[in-house]
Amino acid sequence: MATLDDIARELGVSKGTVSKALNGAKDVSQKTKQAVLETAVRLGYFRAPRNAPSQKIALFVINMEYTKPEDFGYDVVSGFRIAAEPAGFLVDVIPLTRQMQFDCHYDDYMIQNGYCGGFLLGLSLSEPWLAEFSTSKIPAILYDNYIKGNPRVTSIGIDNEEGIEMAVHYLQSLGHQKIGYLSSDLNSHVYRKRYDAFSRTMQASGLIADDSVMGADFHVNICLTNHLPRLLENGCTAILCSHDVLAHSVMIHCLELGLRVPEDISIMGYDDIPLCRYTAPPLTTIRQKRTSLGKSAFSALTSQLNHVPIGTLLLHAELIERGSCGIVSEHVN
Amino acid sequence: MATLDDIARELGVSKGTVSKALNGAKDVSQKTKQAVLETAVRLGYFRAPRNAPSQKIALFVINMEYTKPEDFGYDVVSGFRIAAEPAGFLVDVIPLTRQMQFDCHYDDYMIQNGYCGGFLLGLSLSEPWLAEFSTSKIPAILYDNYIKGNPRVTSIGIDNEEGIEMAVHYLQSLGHQKIGYLSSDLNSHVYRKRYDAFSRTMQASGLIADDSVMGADFHVNICLTNHLPRLLENGCTAILCSHDVLAHSVMIHCLELGLRVPEDISIMGYDDIPLCRYTAPPLTTIRQKRTSLGKSAFSALTSQLNHVPIGTLLLHAELIERGSCGIVSEHVN
Repeated sequence: MATLDDIARELGVSKGTVSKALNGAKDVSQKTKQAVLETAVRLGYFRAPRNAPSQKIALFVINMEYTKPEDFGYDVVSGFRIAAEPAGFLVDVIPLTRQMQFDCHYDDYMIQNGYCGGFLLGLSLSEPWLAEFSTSKIPAILYDNYIKGNPRVTSIGIDNEEGIEMAVHYLQSLGHQKIGYLSSDLNSHVYRKRYDAFSRTMQASGLIADDSVMGADFHVNICLTNHLPRLLENGCTAILCSHDVLAHSVMIHCLELGLRVPEDISIMGYDDIPLCRYTAPPLTTIRQKRTSLGKSAFSALTSQLNHVPIGTLLLHAELIERGSCGIVSEHVN
Repeated sequence: MATLDDIARELGVSKGTVSKALNGAKDVSQKTKQAVLETAVRLGYFRAPRNAPSQKIALFVINMEYTKPEDFGYDVVSGFRIAAEPAGFLVDVIPLTRQMQFDCHYDDYMIQNGYCGGFLLGLSLSEPWLAEFSTSKIPAILYDNYIKGNPRVTSIGIDNEEGIEMAVHYLQSLGHQKIGYLSSDLNSHVYRKRYDAFSRTMQASGLIADDSVMGADFHVNICLTNHLPRLLENGCTAILCSHDVLAHSVMIHCLELGLRVPEDISIMGYDDIPLCRYTAPPLTTIRQKRTSLGKSAFSALTSQLNHVPIGTLLLHAELIERGSCGIVSEHVN
């Protein structure tokens, strides 16, 4: 980790000038401030504010609800804070907009605001900062995104391979052979992973995994009006969905079509959001342990701060059996 | 985590009997001892010895040298102890034999000896305990082995996918097109991973990855006398090896054949064992950060003890450029 002295030496200015530049002092020129900031980023300096009682962490939340207990992000944020705050860190939760990402590079933002590291929840593949994480210097923990080759970036999540495998094997154990899969937008690292894992697991189990049983679209409505009828026509007796909200919509749609869940059709979700226990019937799903996700993100960040370059950290998936899946009924097919 | 009371309730005996049974008291029958032990394992009880100053961890070493600084395992064991001992844990380093594994199940061994968790280094796929880790209850951290579906088991290692990709892209950047791969025994989780990653990376890069450039055998001599000549005949200008010791043998063999390294043939290893800087020329390789591996194993174990079920933890790989790889010379091919 570079120091103020390293930056001063590199630029041939005094340590005082570097310090003033980083603190935004008025008697340092804009040009010098810019040079100091760029050098700080390049050398991997991070700033521990002099009067701050403890180190600060930025927890960025993008495209994800997190303020109410029923939101997916709520327990993840809580888990992180439960682990970080007793260890003496201050955690700022920051809703991140595209504009903020266009206005300021990740490393610059972190140094200017005195953050030692970041935890980022909910980045899609098209977020502007995502491209920066191949070369960024300030530790970053990404939930459900995978960046290769940068020792300062850790990817955390649930083992989706394991989760989808559990789901398929569970449905198989109930006698289902023709298992359908419906997915949201594949322009997401995690939905792509689950989609591919489904295809691989089905093939490895000697089951069919082609267009006749799989469908994906950005719009839930297209999943419901185009893909779902096709899957049902093709004889699927169970449908696994890429996430619980989609599974819930599929369940309601099937009930509207006059199908009984799970007697006529089994439906399974993924994530175990709080909603699952209140659907009718309650949704069988694969759990992402949200509080554990938050805690393990903090554990990965402290490893980063101690120069242990964790690249990937995956939690075990867990099958949650509720009421939306049943054994294949005899009259089907 | 189950308590003595839970075991007593389950068996309908007193807590005192359970305690005595676990402590091997003479006035408890063998049958009761056995029942208590089995129930303790089934319920996931772990024993904190009453008079012990702190919790005990078992660090098992199998098929791996670790006592001298030049051994691969030395820094891994040190890294683990550096992290665990200041945190108040006692670490027992135990060379594990097959006989020990046949004599006693993993869970039983851990409970009988008062260990709260284990870190296992160097298990091959054929070790007797490996099959037990699908259902074991006492936290286990496995280096370079992957067990699906048991929340109590964490797999740690280097991201071999990333490491092999780095190696292939590096050789490509030096102009190599025909890159060979030599591997040790594929009856090892990690050598299998690297072998498959090589094949995938080559194909993704539009390069050939078939029998003409790949070879694997348990015996180093067969790699040298059968596979190596074939790769050279087929025009390979660089050879990536599954581990440094093999790369070193390949390098010596090439020099004996009158080939100059790296002028006529580039040779690259994997692991960055201490030997690499002393070979002639010094070996270019992919580093496994050994001390970091040990530290992150401890971090995974404490997560397990805090009921955060980490399944996989992979460290970033790192390319170490030394003298054994060069740009493709014009006279080759």
